[in-house]
Amino acid sequence: MSPTATLLISCSNQSGLVAKIANFIYANGGNIIHADQHTDFTAGLFLTRIEWQLDGFNLPREFITPAFRAIAQPLQANWQLHFSNTVPRLAIWVSKQDHCLFDLIWRQKAKEFNAEISLIISNHPDLRVVAEQFGIDFHHLPMTKENKSTQEAQQLELLQHYKIDLVVLAKYMQIVSTEFITNFPKIINIHHSFLPAFIGASPYHQAYERGVKIIGATAHYVTPELDAGPIIEQDVARVSHRDDVAVFIREGKDLERLVLARAVRLHLENRVLVYGNRTVVFE
Amino acid sequence: MSPTATLLISCSNQSGLVAKIANFIYANGGNIIHADQHTDFTAGLFLTRIEWQLDGFNLPREFITPAFRAIAQPLQANWQLHFSNTVPRLAIWVSKQDHCLFDLIWRQKAKEFNAEISLIISNHPDLRVVAEQFGIDFHHLPMTKENKSTQEAQQLELLQHYKIDLVVLAKYMQIVSTEFITNFPKIINIHHSFLPAFIGASPYHQAYERGVKIIGATAHYVTPELDAGPIIEQDVARVSHRDDVAVFIREGKDLERLVLARAVRLHLENRVLVYGNRTVVFE
Amino acid sequence: MSPTATLLISCSNQSGLVAKIANFIYANGGNIIHADQHTDFTAGLFLTRIEWQLDGFNLPREFITPAFRAIAQPLQANWQLHFSNTVPRLAIWVSKQDHCLFDLIWRQKAKEFNAEISLIISNHPDLRVVAEQFGIDFHHLPMTKENKSTQEAQQLELLQHYKIDLVVLAKYMQIVSTEFITNFPKIINIHHSFLPAFIGASPYHQAYERGVKIIGATAHYVTPELDAGPIIEQDVARVSHRDDVAVFIREGKDLERLVLARAVRLHLENRVLVYGNRTVVFE
Amino acid sequence: MSPTATLLISCSNQSGLVAKIANFIYANGGNIIHADQHTDFTAGLFLTRIEWQLDGFNLPREFITPAFRAIAQPLQANWQLHFSNTVPRLAIWVSKQDHCLFDLIWRQKAKEFNAEISLIISNHPDLRVVAEQFGIDFHHLPMTKENKSTQEAQQLELLQHYKIDLVVLAKYMQIVSTEFITNFPKIINIHHSFLPAFIGASPYHQAYERGVKIIGATAHYVTPELDAGPIIEQDVARVSHRDDVAVFIREGKDLERLVLARAVRLHLENRVLVYGNRTVVFE
Repeated sequence: MSPTATLLISCSNQSGLVAKIANFIYANGGNIIHADQHTDFTAGLFLTRIEWQLDGFNLPREFITPAFRAIAQPLQANWQLHFSNTVPRLAIWVSKQDHCLFDLIWRQKAKEFNAEISLIISNHPDLRVVAEQFGIDFHHLPMTKENKSTQEAQQLELLQHYKIDLVVLAKYMQIVSTEFITNFPKIINIHHSFLPAFIGASPYHQAYERGVKIIGATAHYVTPELDAGPIIEQDVARVSHRDDVAVFIREGKDLERLVLARAVRLHLENRVLVYGNRTVVFE
Repeated sequence: MSPTATLLISCSNQSGLVAKIANFIYANGGNIIHADQHTDFTAGLFLTRIEWQLDGFNLPREFITPAFRAIAQPLQANWQLHFSNTVPRLAIWVSKQDHCLFDLIWRQKAKEFNAEISLIISNHPDLRVVAEQFGIDFHHLPMTKENKSTQEAQQLELLQHYKIDLVVLAKYMQIVSTEFITNFPKIINIHHSFLPAFIGASPYHQAYERGVKIIGATAHYVTPELDAGPIIEQDVARVSHRDDVAVFIREGKDLERLVLARAVRLHLENRVLVYGNRTVVFE
Repeated sequence: MSPTATLLISCSNQSGLVAKIANFIYANGGNIIHADQHTDFTAGLFLTRIEWQLDGFNLPREFITPAFRAIAQPLQANWQLHFSNTVPRLAIWVSKQDHCLFDLIWRQKAKEFNAEISLIISNHPDLRVVAEQFGIDFHHLPMTKENKSTQEAQQLELLQHYKIDLVVLAKYMQIVSTEFITNFPKIINIHHSFLPAFIGASPYHQAYERGVKIIGATAHYVTPELDAGPIIEQDVARVSHRDDVAVFIREGKDLERLVLARAVRLHLENRVLVYGNRTVVFE
Repeated sequence: MSPTATLLISCSNQSGLVAKIANFIYANGGNIIHADQHTDFTAGLFLTRIEWQLDGFNLPREFITPAFRAIAQPLQANWQLHFSNTVPRLAIWVSKQDHCLFDLIWRQKAKEFNAEISLIISNHPDLRVVAEQFGIDFHHLPMTKENKSTQEAQQLELLQHYKIDLVVLAKYMQIVSTEFITNFPKIINIHHSFLPAFIGASPYHQAYERGVKIIGATAHYVTPELDAGPIIEQDVARVSHRDDVAVFIREGKDLERLVLARAVRLHLENRVLVYGNRTVVFE
């Protein structure tokens, strides 16, 4: 299987965009294997994802960026270029619960997504044993109100040291500061509710109190406003009066595993494009 | 098919409850066709639904209430008795949208539930034509801030005149006053969101703004606090970045029709028991 | 809102396809509002849907076909061209059940899809009253083993007379002959099971016998082999041991309404492309 | 939390059943924490599950069976009695795929169900490493046409040696002989399709060929007829034309994990009652 290049592009809607981008690939002999576009007429935005095989593409890899910049600049487009054989590096942040961590590790081993899990950070020591079981570096950084900014500085240093591309909050249960997000904005969180219902702590208890008949989970990019970042994926499960909070939590774990894993995979396959506070997911 | 009697009972949890109630039916020769119980250990409550055939039941219908009262009183139980051949009478309240109205009328004609639709009330004249098409009385009661209390008095009078058992707000789009609810508490509403997300006006617009990947609808009993009453039924549908508000509304209509119809049917089959702000749905 | 043109194209996969098609639209000043492509690598097929506004498009409507033929021919492409302001004409075929018929009529009136319901054909007289209620021509053509071929000739004549573009079998409950399908292949059927489970008669009874926990419905194009045509849409609902065949049928009606309506809308919006025995649905 | 006793009872429908069973518990001072009954009117069968706390129950554990036999015999009832603090012992049979195995182990460790995983049997050596990682005995029994009956004898011996209560076929990919099933009938299998669609080998390939829009998984008890045993649980996931067989398989793994885990949990909580070829699931 040939490695591929993927362009994710957004720009103000104008005619000829598809033609210009397709011509660029075609003119250089590229074989497109996925192309999808979306126009948000309310926002006046054109968004596209285009993926082509590098084998047979006449432009050497290092010239693609300058060549496409010449096309993108007059369009005032935002764009990213990714190569499928550059393996992204993940840091997974956890607290005490292991279900999302185990699930991500299993999927990575099963090659459901293409990434290296380079680092696990936790504010508790409990999951060190899992990290060791799978030979992944583990750093225990306990968090208190007092030490938060020094610990976040430490976290940031670790991300740099390990050359991390994406942080996955796999039930990290801590609020990440605005300052941290500004420094490292590529963070996906799993929230254990169907957002925007039940923002904040103990969403399953809140859901039980409200007497809902359906519970949910939401994977989103982290932004300074709590649980309000762009949603990547959501899913739900039916509950009944027979189900108490413990059942909500048990069923919720399955949702969290699935929803977080899908969001991480979609991100790693460069299928997610953020604009404003929303996402386009090119499936 | 024999007519049936149904008891809905809630009382504080204590041993022997199932035996006492089952013995009452058995001792009088009743053939139970549905029995279900639920214990909410947090609330310390026992809740049950029991339905039996009246053919062959030795106790004449008019003596069931006094006979069961003798059992229920020492248990300090709340209970309701319903007979399947007493046909409940519905009033459907609408505004301008016809999808839930059409759907309820079609289901009533298809005998999906056992009730008479006796009355349609609207604050707009638009749906009079539907009422006439199906031969249902229609009353147009325009609502303004100024006339609300006189119009609600008029609504109450109509409910009494038509001997209405249940009011269904089928996209009525008006807030019912606390005073009205106190006088007539049997009201089911369909809210066009997955409550408690997007309470109040324009939930589909709110949902679109938030960039959700799933939309929902919620049927609930109406209480004085807006969109906060006990939930009977909810359902959801997946949406994507391709779907604008108009699509949310179109897909939402299907959800609203299904969720409201299920809630009305469950209520009319005496399968819903409210306690606190939650429901037990004996399916 | 400007009228639009839509091209549905399939051809063997080769490089430059997106560029060639996009250039054709762009060169003539077209503003693309939807473009989606799919490559089936197993079949070696490229499939695309492209929709653009006719306002501002420099090529007069009658010249689009010859102009695009010049592009398509060297590619050996199969293609269709549709204009959004050409309103397709539907014939709905029913038997005795009215739920899908009512639903399609309601959706057409609610403008959920752009089509005229010109004709209702039934092998029973029962639903004439619905046709009359909504002012739609109704033809009663009873079917027996003996008269099948003459009645089908009559049906074909009616389709020609009414200039019908699409036949919707809305619970028609009769098998359409291979000869008929050859003469008029644009037929969508709703089958009341999750195909390929429970092909043929009484699928809900079959499903109940098998003890399934989920029932389904399938909308598909009709082909000579019974219930084996290309699937457009499917959906499912959960059932439990409490649900008997009557409940399967009641819940199934909701599925049938939704699934058939979605399939009809997708077809009418020219979003469905058939190849082999499968469909691409450009949503 | 007090240990509990659970009775699962089925007998021909007759009046007084609920009363008789409830009286038995009540008369001995039992505190019922779950009671549910179902009547299958077509089959003329009454089925019930009743669970009560052993603390405070006056009848010593060893006398419950003879005492209840005196009640059950005149009713000609089939019944089972289970105690919550008798921990069932599982054997998990696998082939090469690890997703269901990992999932069951994780859930057992997370106490989602109450059982000991005592034994893993496989026809391939690949998953020995997983067994060792979690300290579970592993037996490699390669299967060929020739050695099948001797290997099955060996399997049976292992089940006896390890005092196994339930065999879980977690993607075992082998057909178990009728003789084996007769000797050890407590077997749950996960089939990777929405049965009865796509019975037998390569269901995802079959599903892809058929062009379905939804795939499924089914957990069922194993009976001599292939993939035709009583269904415990099913679930489905939506697929699109973009998804090839590899995606069907990836999405299917999530379904298989969830559906098998739910079925195993329901069985271990004594919530599943089989009659004919169907199940009642007392949730």
